Amino acid sequence: MYGTAVAIFLVILVAALQGSVPPENPFPYHVPLDPEGTLELSWNVSYAREDVHFQLLVRGLKAGVLFGMSDRGELQNADLVVLWTDGNSAYFGDAWSDQKGQIHLDSQQDYQLLRAQKTPEGLYLLFKRPFSTCDPKDYLIEDGTVHLIYGILEQPFLSLEAINTSDLQTGLQRVQLLKPNIMVPSLPEDLNTREIRAPNVLIPGQETTYWCYITELPASFSKHHIVMYEPIVTVGNEALVHHMEVFQCAAEFESFPHFSGPCDSKMKPDRLNYCRHVLAAWALGAKAFYYPEEAGLPFGGAGSSRYLRLEVHYHNPLKIKGRRDSSGIRLYYTASLRPYDAGIMELGLVYTPVMAIPPQETAFMLTGYCTDKCTQLALPSSGIHIFASQLHTHLTGRKVVTVLARGGREREVVNRDNHYSPHFQEIRMLKKVVSVHPGDVLITSCTYNTEDRNLTTVGGFGILEEMCVNYAHYYPQTQLELCKSAVDPGFLQKYFHQVNSFNSEDVCTCPQTSVPQQFASVPWNSFNREVLKALYNFAPISVHCNKSSAVRFQGEWNLQPLPKITSTLEEPPPRCPAHRAQNPSGPTVVNMGGGKS
Amino acid sequence: MYGTAVAIFLVILVAALQGSVPPENPFPYHVPLDPEGTLELSWNVSYAREDVHFQLLVRGLKAGVLFGMSDRGELQNADLVVLWTDGNSAYFGDAWSDQKGQIHLDSQQDYQLLRAQKTPEGLYLLFKRPFSTCDPKDYLIEDGTVHLIYGILEQPFLSLEAINTSDLQTGLQRVQLLKPNIMVPSLPEDLNTREIRAPNVLIPGQETTYWCYITELPASFSKHHIVMYEPIVTVGNEALVHHMEVFQCAAEFESFPHFSGPCDSKMKPDRLNYCRHVLAAWALGAKAFYYPEEAGLPFGGAGSSRYLRLEVHYHNPLKIKGRRDSSGIRLYYTASLRPYDAGIMELGLVYTPVMAIPPQETAFMLTGYCTDKCTQLALPSSGIHIFASQLHTHLTGRKVVTVLARGGREREVVNRDNHYSPHFQEIRMLKKVVSVHPGDVLITSCTYNTEDRNLTTVGGFGILEEMCVNYAHYYPQTQLELCKSAVDPGFLQKYFHQVNSFNSEDVCTCPQTSVPQQFASVPWNSFNREVLKALYNFAPISVHCNKSSAVRFQGEWNLQPLPKITSTLEEPPPRCPAHRAQNPSGPTVVNMGGGKS
Repeated sequence: MYGTAVAIFLVILVAALQGSVPPENPFPYHVPLDPEGTLELSWNVSYAREDVHFQLLVRGLKAGVLFGMSDRGELQNADLVVLWTDGNSAYFGDAWSDQKGQIHLDSQQDYQLLRAQKTPEGLYLLFKRPFSTCDPKDYLIEDGTVHLIYGILEQPFLSLEAINTSDLQTGLQRVQLLKPNIMVPSLPEDLNTREIRAPNVLIPGQETTYWCYITELPASFSKHHIVMYEPIVTVGNEALVHHMEVFQCAAEFESFPHFSGPCDSKMKPDRLNYCRHVLAAWALGAKAFYYPEEAGLPFGGAGSSRYLRLEVHYHNPLKIKGRRDSSGIRLYYTASLRPYDAGIMELGLVYTPVMAIPPQETAFMLTGYCTDKCTQLALPSSGIHIFASQLHTHLTGRKVVTVLARGGREREVVNRDNHYSPHFQEIRMLKKVVSVHPGDVLITSCTYNTEDRNLTTVGGFGILEEMCVNYAHYYPQTQLELCKSAVDPGFLQKYFHQVNSFNSEDVCTCPQTSVPQQFASVPWNSFNREVLKALYNFAPISVHCNKSSAVRFQGEWNLQPLPKITSTLEEPPPRCPAHRAQNPSGPTVVNMGGGKS
Repeated sequence: MYGTAVAIFLVILVAALQGSVPPENPFPYHVPLDPEGTLELSWNVSYAREDVHFQLLVRGLKAGVLFGMSDRGELQNADLVVLWTDGNSAYFGDAWSDQKGQIHLDSQQDYQLLRAQKTPEGLYLLFKRPFSTCDPKDYLIEDGTVHLIYGILEQPFLSLEAINTSDLQTGLQRVQLLKPNIMVPSLPEDLNTREIRAPNVLIPGQETTYWCYITELPASFSKHHIVMYEPIVTVGNEALVHHMEVFQCAAEFESFPHFSGPCDSKMKPDRLNYCRHVLAAWALGAKAFYYPEEAGLPFGGAGSSRYLRLEVHYHNPLKIKGRRDSSGIRLYYTASLRPYDAGIMELGLVYTPVMAIPPQETAFMLTGYCTDKCTQLALPSSGIHIFASQLHTHLTGRKVVTVLARGGREREVVNRDNHYSPHFQEIRMLKKVVSVHPGDVLITSCTYNTEDRNLTTVGGFGILEEMCVNYAHYYPQTQLELCKSAVDPGFLQKYFHQVNSFNSEDVCTCPQTSVPQQFASVPWNSFNREVLKALYNFAPISVHCNKSSAVRFQGEWNLQPLPKITSTLEEPPPRCPAHRAQNPSGPTVVNMGGGKS
């Protein structure tokens, strides 16, 4: 009687619902959850009420659906909402999965069902949840990346406890759930647009493709300001186009060859590696990006390349073949230059092997500093204003945060992502513009997980090496392109010496040995791990305070003391919603009638 | 109209109370809260319901009272219950104090008022609270020491927020709130008692007095078993007698001089320092101590001193003068020896300066090991059974825990006190007897706070030095008296060398320098602190596996590897009570009528 597709028809609306149902189309944000697009999530955010309203569209509902959040997208230890049926009635409840993936009803019901409505398109579920519930089983909705998970129930279950996520069709989708609530700045009247899109790409039938496409601005294109940009996604491919970036090529080359093909293709001209200056970046779930009213991103004109590279990441886990795509980014620009040029500054760690992560670490933190001495020298007295930020690490990065300190005290978070994923790097507008003054310090920390590695992971450019970067978007533009640090190499040599004195001679401290070789021969016992951590938190640093990647500001930048921080910013304890006693203490019955087909 | 003593008369019982009121005198445990004994707390514990019923007797009620718990007895950041009046009505509510001591109503009401009753003796408030509430503002009631706090409201307050704890008469009392639920073992028929009490002591009019009194057993007193003991507290002095211990003197001396006076008196004979073997210990709030039915503590007979020392700690903060006291301990013993002699084994750290705590640390942990090699050699194949435990540190100790590990995995907590105070050292019966077998490892960790110190605190006997000891009471008695460890001194010298290589030459590593001198010259930067921690968690240890304090079991005990622990016991996350939604969301009105005198 119950096949793989038990059709359930929702007949009666859920009654006695608390809270007001928001007006008709109040959901500015949308993502498809699964690669086929059968589950579509829309949401809005209220910072006043500190809650999120979700609208989940379930096309072709079978016997139920689960949706939720977890630290990194795993189906275990997840915070879930489940719509399920026992064959007679249907239920909606707040649940959680244990470390084996088995589902349990939550003793505290924090997801609140507001409406369940069947339409020709599918079932619409409207529900809300506070950012924080103070239930230890629940996920805390924070700024930055949120890993959404879903699962399809194909058959009835007598109880929630009978469901194990490992038996279901499941998946994950990363989004920035708490979008900033930013007023759209007014746009100039002489707005032009230029679409940067690779026409008619045949999406390869493989899980991951990075598509590279070169285009060029007209000859003698003068200096303009980009004031906004937005994604153009080919209709029907919403679940395949994962992220897109537009890069400007290096000005030192007169011209670049045209190309349209996979970025890892052997046919790709080497010169395209010189197209790395980010102009625009979009990732799934993001909307248009606006520059602040006083600033625009300069492009065109003398000293700027006419050549642009578009990179499109196709995520095609179902290996669908034959799909055509012309997605890209639409730039909005103006010849009426705004008062300020916007700039991009690199914060974090220098790309050097002296900053390293031992293997088998679950949460190893490395920190890079933009020191008071550098900001004193390089920033205008009126300061700069950071309005957006793109965080960057390689594969083992798990968290990134940049904090501003002044007078030895941490003052403000510039950008924080506690669930950072290297597979989801967007340029994010900040909720609040952060002003940086001469003498301020910017501290960027990245947390890495190397549990699946057996060798030391050193800093560097390679994909198996690591980075810790915050690309800070700011205005007015200054000469400061790069403000980063790394541990003093001499102190690292003392560390290798010390490893040898506490252990049997192992690390060659002879001059011809490279730092990666030295790290490779460290026996990673608890002592050597802890002392390396202590070294990074103590030893003097070498600071890169640069006008371009090779040209330093004048001054002594070696053997600099670590900035002294006397008070740190604690993450505030989550506020618990006051009125949770109103919530039901068990699942809500969703009245369903009709056929078991 | 409202003077310093506003008399409030409770007229009507609180109605509509949830839960059942327990029968008439169901409170086995009692303590006075304040030194005058105007507040008296009685309580019972239900492990089935995981809650505590409190009965607070308020003698001479003025305008209200507050009672609660906090980490270490501070009035700030405390979890409180408050009875207050605005002049017209009286209220009972769950509240908390912020870091400035200001009181706020708790958004979740977890203290539940069951009865409020005026009697000629005073006002009785009966209320209950779950061990754990899952409210981040609330104290988690755990095993071990609980710091109870109280305050007297002398005038009405228009609101809770108008109360600041710093303006009130307040105080603290330490108790073991979660007493173990142990069946009283059956006692032998030929039970004798002996009262060890200092007769007619004139309690000095000073805050702290340790009174020493020497008494002796009859000549040719043969071997007996102590099977229980209980406190005898002179009526009226309940709030002054803080703790009492009975020690047996060393057998190597034929006799000891009689003495009755302060332990720090210049008149006290030196020889009394040889009376340190604990026979019995009691502290405020504790009840009778029972040995398990199979065992008794041997005293009397050959090889055992006839001389006993009683130590009574008088805590007299109001400096009351002229009070007479004859408190002491009543030993119950039998000549019908039980199957097993009980013994006491010292676990933890060797008394040596190589184990040290840097200054200005808030929570520095030192760990001592009783290794598998020692238990293999010294314990009988059937194992030993630990039934009670007394934790011991000097002034900077804040937490103590002993864990049993087997096969590299932590299995069981022997005793844990997360709110340990050096001012409250009782012998505590364990909720569950812990059996230790040959090959098991016992790991004892102490956490210290040296925020108020400017110099290194080293291990040692002095009151300003530190100890980390668990006196484990067990049977059957074995030869193993002491199973402790300390870091290998050679590795500590490597540490001092390394301090010199990373800093400018500071620590003299020349042979004539003592370890305390070396520690005194370490510059305590973050690196030297972290590396010391790492050293203690890594370096080999020297193990004391001793028959008496000077005689080791045969074997190699130096440069022993640290026990390898592959899985640790996590403290389980507190369970949240299921039915808290039934609790009121605001304060309860306690109906009061009558005069404003």
